[in-house]
Amino acid sequence: MPTLTRRALLAGSALAVISAPAGPSVAAAPPAGKEAPGIYRYRIGTFELTALYDGIWYRPITEKFIHNAPFAEVETALADAFMPADKLATPFTTLIVNTGKKLVLIDTGTGGQIAPSAGVLRANLVAAGIDPRAIDLIVISHFHPDHINGIKDKDNDLVFPNAEIMVPGAEWKFWMDDANLNAAPTDLKLTFRNQRRIFSDIARNVTRFEPGAEVAPGIATLAAPGHTPGHTVFAIHSGDQSLMVLGDTAQHPAVFARHPDWQAAFDIDGDAAVATRKKLFDRAAADRMLVTGYHFPFPACGHLVKTAGGYEHVAVEWQPNL
Amino acid sequence: MPTLTRRALLAGSALAVISAPAGPSVAAAPPAGKEAPGIYRYRIGTFELTALYDGIWYRPITEKFIHNAPFAEVETALADAFMPADKLATPFTTLIVNTGKKLVLIDTGTGGQIAPSAGVLRANLVAAGIDPRAIDLIVISHFHPDHINGIKDKDNDLVFPNAEIMVPGAEWKFWMDDANLNAAPTDLKLTFRNQRRIFSDIARNVTRFEPGAEVAPGIATLAAPGHTPGHTVFAIHSGDQSLMVLGDTAQHPAVFARHPDWQAAFDIDGDAAVATRKKLFDRAAADRMLVTGYHFPFPACGHLVKTAGGYEHVAVEWQPNL
Repeated sequence: MPTLTRRALLAGSALAVISAPAGPSVAAAPPAGKEAPGIYRYRIGTFELTALYDGIWYRPITEKFIHNAPFAEVETALADAFMPADKLATPFTTLIVNTGKKLVLIDTGTGGQIAPSAGVLRANLVAAGIDPRAIDLIVISHFHPDHINGIKDKDNDLVFPNAEIMVPGAEWKFWMDDANLNAAPTDLKLTFRNQRRIFSDIARNVTRFEPGAEVAPGIATLAAPGHTPGHTVFAIHSGDQSLMVLGDTAQHPAVFARHPDWQAAFDIDGDAAVATRKKLFDRAAADRMLVTGYHFPFPACGHLVKTAGGYEHVAVEWQPNL
Repeated sequence: MPTLTRRALLAGSALAVISAPAGPSVAAAPPAGKEAPGIYRYRIGTFELTALYDGIWYRPITEKFIHNAPFAEVETALADAFMPADKLATPFTTLIVNTGKKLVLIDTGTGGQIAPSAGVLRANLVAAGIDPRAIDLIVISHFHPDHINGIKDKDNDLVFPNAEIMVPGAEWKFWMDDANLNAAPTDLKLTFRNQRRIFSDIARNVTRFEPGAEVAPGIATLAAPGHTPGHTVFAIHSGDQSLMVLGDTAQHPAVFARHPDWQAAFDIDGDAAVATRKKLFDRAAADRMLVTGYHFPFPACGHLVKTAGGYEHVAVEWQPNL
């Protein structure tokens, strides 16, 4: 079999190398020049779900980013997944649930305020034929900026003006407490201040829920603390089907599902984050549950398999029809 | 942590279960009711590539389908990949290469003539903004119906009327030989007859190439026999980037990359198919080459990693920008 380098293919060989046909002299059709929209729909019972891609952040990381594993192991994990070195691939996929009675958006994307390579959610909403004004309810898993910034645009105007906003009570309690802001290290203060930018002037319209509540019929909430104190997972049920919306229980599965013990700089309580991750992932793997993760590769939906050292994410097979 | 069943969540618990807010009484926005287009673009050097999804066939299989492995092992492989039992998930992704001078389509999809769940290629072409009349060149990997049927519609009219068609000489020689048709078992005769339906009346416009030829500048061909006698792999080069277009070197990687020794009923020469698969996959894994496979899960592009027993496909991470 010939080698695959261009040089070898073009060099003389025992095989006759015929010329490409001359063909018409016209240039090809112009390139599209842009990526296709990141939109994927699926059903849970009678609910229609839309995975909407907001883009990806290649987050620079250093030796301190995973504080309980040698950096060489982290580098190996990145290389094994064909990820860039020294960066954590952090894709963002929001989820819209049309229950038939409400159009619910779970987490809101980066609002174009995190990285130049993220912020395509609004363009993808347009491509999906979804008017932001039609969103009835926004539900937030936790208060990190890549989950809440999409509530407002860069001018601080509401992107989804008709949406009620529901947030975990424990998130509100922790992050909106000025004593916690004042006690926080300098870089984390930015996170606290960003939360005030998003929430302070709309606080009267923000409803807080406790774990166990349904935020809408068929969308239940579960406490999943660790990543942040009030980090919340959602369980969507319709008919005999269900989906677990894992949020940031694990970020990119090629790193954190395969290495569930790793504690990252973004986890407020690393031990609790690991315990929550293992508990939920064990459950999902044992029950072969359909899951989605906010930082899983688009379309972010699949299953988890337990392996010797951790878990493997098996992406759903893209379907042509709903 | 509460359990995830609806019953448990709705039952009384130590946690306060608040009611979902009443909200406006209007119904949610209407569901889209259909899947989003399966389109994904990427670049190889200056070439713009478009992966175009044609759908999926859940091919019924029996104990004889893989003739050199116990069916229980096949069933385990399907279950491990969350595939339906007794069916081989067979997605179809065609590839369009815009070289800047030519618009090249590699393999043509099912033409809606294989399974009801396949045949969305033409709708996805429209969604991608590609006029079928703009395709300059069709290149065929081999003559199985899911690769050639898209040349014509159900009325036998050409779908890409301005495209030159280039096919592997060894495919033409084997399949268009009436002696081989006459000697074939009954079910394979259908394949031979289908090839005549597609090619006989356009034979004068079909160019045959030999392995080693470039079918267009930057698109080289390599013999990859076994699956069929003239099965051909393409190597796309532009700048310092390359892509290996594996065709049917392996069908679904969750089955045939993980079990490279398995010989399926659709392989004309099972031993040769396995030898070709291992040779090309070893090469791709060793060189960490970008590859695409016609029956890999959409968008069908990624890398191969060598494992203890075979190979693992690592899908590319979906990007928001070209």
